[in-house]
Amino acid sequence: MKAVFLRDGAIQFDERAKPTPGPGQVLVKTKCCGICGSDLHFYKHPEELLGPNPPDIFLGHEYCVEICEFGPDTKQEMLVGQRACSIPFVETEDGSREPIGTNTQRYGAYSEYFLLSENLILPVPDSLADEAVALVEPLAVGIHAVSRSEIADNAIALVYGCGPIGLATISALKNRGVDNIVASDPTAKRRTLALEMGASIVVDPTNDNVMSHVSALQSASYEGRGEVVLFECVGIHTMIPELIASAPPKSTIVFAGVHTKDTTFNPIMAMVKELDIKFTFYYENAEYEQALALLASGKLKWQPLVTGTVGYDGIQGAFETLLSPNEHIKIMVQPWRTGSLLQTE
Amino acid sequence: MKAVFLRDGAIQFDERAKPTPGPGQVLVKTKCCGICGSDLHFYKHPEELLGPNPPDIFLGHEYCVEICEFGPDTKQEMLVGQRACSIPFVETEDGSREPIGTNTQRYGAYSEYFLLSENLILPVPDSLADEAVALVEPLAVGIHAVSRSEIADNAIALVYGCGPIGLATISALKNRGVDNIVASDPTAKRRTLALEMGASIVVDPTNDNVMSHVSALQSASYEGRGEVVLFECVGIHTMIPELIASAPPKSTIVFAGVHTKDTTFNPIMAMVKELDIKFTFYYENAEYEQALALLASGKLKWQPLVTGTVGYDGIQGAFETLLSPNEHIKIMVQPWRTGSLLQTE
Repeated sequence: MKAVFLRDGAIQFDERAKPTPGPGQVLVKTKCCGICGSDLHFYKHPEELLGPNPPDIFLGHEYCVEICEFGPDTKQEMLVGQRACSIPFVETEDGSREPIGTNTQRYGAYSEYFLLSENLILPVPDSLADEAVALVEPLAVGIHAVSRSEIADNAIALVYGCGPIGLATISALKNRGVDNIVASDPTAKRRTLALEMGASIVVDPTNDNVMSHVSALQSASYEGRGEVVLFECVGIHTMIPELIASAPPKSTIVFAGVHTKDTTFNPIMAMVKELDIKFTFYYENAEYEQALALLASGKLKWQPLVTGTVGYDGIQGAFETLLSPNEHIKIMVQPWRTGSLLQTE
Repeated sequence: MKAVFLRDGAIQFDERAKPTPGPGQVLVKTKCCGICGSDLHFYKHPEELLGPNPPDIFLGHEYCVEICEFGPDTKQEMLVGQRACSIPFVETEDGSREPIGTNTQRYGAYSEYFLLSENLILPVPDSLADEAVALVEPLAVGIHAVSRSEIADNAIALVYGCGPIGLATISALKNRGVDNIVASDPTAKRRTLALEMGASIVVDPTNDNVMSHVSALQSASYEGRGEVVLFECVGIHTMIPELIASAPPKSTIVFAGVHTKDTTFNPIMAMVKELDIKFTFYYENAEYEQALALLASGKLKWQPLVTGTVGYDGIQGAFETLLSPNEHIKIMVQPWRTGSLLQTE
């Protein structure tokens, strides 16, 4: 099989034997796997996440898979050939959980085959395309960020960044019943998608001020509608002091981006405004299932979110594309084929 | 009257005319006023709070006062000579509120006389000593910090720093029904007071680890008792990265200290542990009233908290004492008399 890994700052691959499923495990084949912002973070700054002289790491944690082979002590309630997804963790024999897709020892979903735990796997309906299944994971991140925020449905949500996590957050907000969603992104295409996902107002931060819309919404609102929740979905650490400085008094900031750099802020603004700051990471199992159910319901127009596909030998090029100014939302890796980036939208 | 102000890095005083109460205002005389950590912050780093070339500032916001003279348009439901307290704000003629005790234009309670708003003044029972009334304000800060934390009564509270705010926080936690309160302070006397206020465990951070007690409490606890809330009551900005690094996963950190310096932290710890971080500032009116009621109930042994008194000409010396290693909790200013620091306990 093709094993794909990050080594010496480059996405590399070689031919290896398929892994053998242990007790309770299942060998799966990647149908497709989304490229996540955190994958790009590993690619650009491996030392920030893995320390100096970082080892090889097997990326890929947003996947649709096909079941290939059951290990010992499995119930085998699904069939070989059936499609499935799973939270990106595998249970090991000692009962602990290890992450999939950010692991230096276990294959991730950029590789052609990898191992999952049978009891974490969820079957997916035939009606759902592979690419939609691979969107379950980032959608769950958005659902979790919104759930952590404890936002009231008459509050004003500000979503900074309309990449996959920002769009997932908008969709989750809309689904929760929040009507006032102001979304900010410098890219016109992303702003259009933000509107499609449920944003009520979109803002180009290069020539407009998010906060001016907040004032307008607050002055137009009924009593108590003033609560503001900011969702940071850009993933650049300078957003931390920036949002602390610009957040209105008594507001909540949810940091959904991955930030690994030392960050400096002045606490006096946070203190005087009595800010609540919440950091989020992954999601609960139930939120992952909720994301799958939302996609299966057909209510979410996911198709425009998938903007490109690539074979195993095109991942490095796709990473470089995503790290330059671009209009992509989600690029899917299909590690069973060769080929450089194909625009799908 | 003696007007007391911070000028050129020193507490100075001169003789001035008493201010004249405007509409809705009352002239009051300071019976006593506590020295707050934030006063010391103004004294040591005025430029951090007031900018370069800081103007004179009139300090004193934790007070017991005596009513001296009513301005026009007052209801005069209290009597001249009656004792009172009030949140440290005054309402001006245009309806806005200005702080008292951190104001460059209005006298604070370190001065012999100052102005308050009649509709914010609360009468105090005769049974309550002046010094107890002056403790209402810092006690309200603790009540507010605990209220903002939304701590469950079966959670584990960690209180860092057992100065006035830390002790007020412990008292508020105990009053809310929280039984597991671990308090940390390097000073033996403060740890003793922490136990008196309701801490269940006290820790000397120079030779013990707060977190080891958390593990012990968690392993001894029933299901769900694991929630941890950290209260930062030290007021040194390096506590911010320190608590972010040491907080357990899914815990809440409440920063009750005043932090004005640029502070650097690494967000990855906050993210992976999904921390909630809450900054607090002042309190609600109802919480101030709650603090007064708690003191009036006689349930709080406030006497050991007042460790010294000083006249208007001794404030500077008291500040220097508080800024050096010391065992004081609260020093009270009595601006109607002269005299350097007298230990009361």
